[in-house]
Amino acid sequence: MTRILGIDPGLLHTGWAVIDTAGSNRTYIASGVILPPTRDALPVRLANIFRGVSELIDTFSPDVCSIEITFVNKNPQTTLALGHARAAAIVAASSRDIPIYEYEPNKVKKALTSAGHADKDQVYKMVRILLPAAHPKTPDESDALAIALTHANMTKFHF
Amino acid sequence: MTRILGIDPGLLHTGWAVIDTAGSNRTYIASGVILPPTRDALPVRLANIFRGVSELIDTFSPDVCSIEITFVNKNPQTTLALGHARAAAIVAASSRDIPIYEYEPNKVKKALTSAGHADKDQVYKMVRILLPAAHPKTPDESDALAIALTHANMTKFHF
Repeated sequence: MTRILGIDPGLLHTGWAVIDTAGSNRTYIASGVILPPTRDALPVRLANIFRGVSELIDTFSPDVCSIEITFVNKNPQTTLALGHARAAAIVAASSRDIPIYEYEPNKVKKALTSAGHADKDQVYKMVRILLPAAHPKTPDESDALAIALTHANMTKFHF
Repeated sequence: MTRILGIDPGLLHTGWAVIDTAGSNRTYIASGVILPPTRDALPVRLANIFRGVSELIDTFSPDVCSIEITFVNKNPQTTLALGHARAAAIVAASSRDIPIYEYEPNKVKKALTSAGHADKDQVYKMVRILLPAAHPKTPDESDALAIALTHANMTKFHF
């Protein structure tokens, strides 16, 4: 059995999800969103993400962490903000020596829907089929579940 | 007396410097460079920066942390890498509730040399004049001292 912490990082909302995987079985454990108050300065918001992910690790003791790779997008300022949020989440796991697996956004979509450009709605539907106990309330929470499931599907073939 | 930890973040080299400031006095305490092994994956290198800065905080107990603002530069991938390194350093300080002050690179150069586009050599010379006890061995170490001095000079007028 492997416990996976999936993270969809962002300065405004960082989605998170915990699932257990054993062979082809997937079990939903928990999921939610970290919401750093927007009135805070960047360093405080990053600390908020770091503390949030640290608490999740203390609570759920995941074996591995699965997170999306950030790509440079049209807006370089958005890319930079996402890079900061992503690093805050990564450091919470890597400083506790938890292995981190990084997946390209298209790989996450493809692992779940067989389409590299599936929209958030299709991802949500597949998450609900694969994890009936999960009821993600936001796209960030749904995406974090998808990222955790992606790692579960990848390791199925590699281990 | 205020103890300032200056940080010049980077994935390859993260320069750091500790100075004490009281009125117009500046005292050099220590400086150096954190060098995450380049063979390691990104999450491990970020953990290396995080742990390095955390140890500096435990050793020197700075009152504040001074760090450069990352700008989007010509190479978006470089910008993203720098953003990750910067966030790892910031989180080490902000998760310990140490106030962080962010300065634009031009402001750092201007605070020391009166020229917003001074080169690294001019910055080094001013660091050596203002802190004769400092003998920075690399540009990253020199820049970290400059960033710490910038905060010392800013607060002189504000407090």
